[in-house]
Amino acid sequence: MSESWLDTVKWNADGLAPVIAQEAGTGKVLTLAWTNREALAATAKEGRAVYWSRSRRKLWRKGEESGHVQRIKDIRLDCDNDAVLLLVEQKGGIACHTGRERCFYQQLQGDRWVAVEPVIKSESEIYGKK
Amino acid sequence: MSESWLDTVKWNADGLAPVIAQEAGTGKVLTLAWTNREALAATAKEGRAVYWSRSRRKLWRKGEESGHVQRIKDIRLDCDNDAVLLLVEQKGGIACHTGRERCFYQQLQGDRWVAVEPVIKSESEIYGKK
Repeated sequence: MSESWLDTVKWNADGLAPVIAQEAGTGKVLTLAWTNREALAATAKEGRAVYWSRSRRKLWRKGEESGHVQRIKDIRLDCDNDAVLLLVEQKGGIACHTGRERCFYQQLQGDRWVAVEPVIKSESEIYGKK
Repeated sequence: MSESWLDTVKWNADGLAPVIAQEAGTGKVLTLAWTNREALAATAKEGRAVYWSRSRRKLWRKGEESGHVQRIKDIRLDCDNDAVLLLVEQKGGIACHTGRERCFYQQLQGDRWVAVEPVIKSESEIYGKK
């Protein structure tokens, strides 16, 4: 299959683009991550979210340790060709490494960020045992 | 009001963080933009989305030319403190400069990006006359 669709994406100076994961069923925005050519190609080919981990500097198959795989329902590109949106089905109902449903759990209340969404599973429960 | 909440955000080397605008009513992800200290402070203070335009290198009060203002319903920060989510009410029902409801209108179909959402207003209609 042609990979010219990957050339359409305007990758930044580091070869990356921001990618939003949104839960298809509920519409909840789960995570803002990063992708590159290899990660986006793998996402499309494998039908699961594959990100680029900037901290570990390698491909990150979401759920490879936790089991919290994100199955792809739709892949979108924005008008400037520099941001990607994934509609996903979130396995296990947990997207965040903190054990919450999603990463955007801190709400601005006045001049403070307040964690307003509960921890469903502890990090040790998610990652401690295989 | 204290601005220590702005110190909590992990700004990148350029002093920026990616910010997602999501329509509160429909759950649609509208836009991926960028914010900085000044833009995020203005967003919270004014109750409307204010972004940092990387191309124009200045604050961009969303809707200042088009009238397509985004009223803020909720401001969220992610677990890594480096990405922001705005829940907004989109005035005029158009977030994208192309005259579409939102920026994520290109869908990956096989190996092509296909525009799958209609233009509601032409760019000249939006920006041509004041």
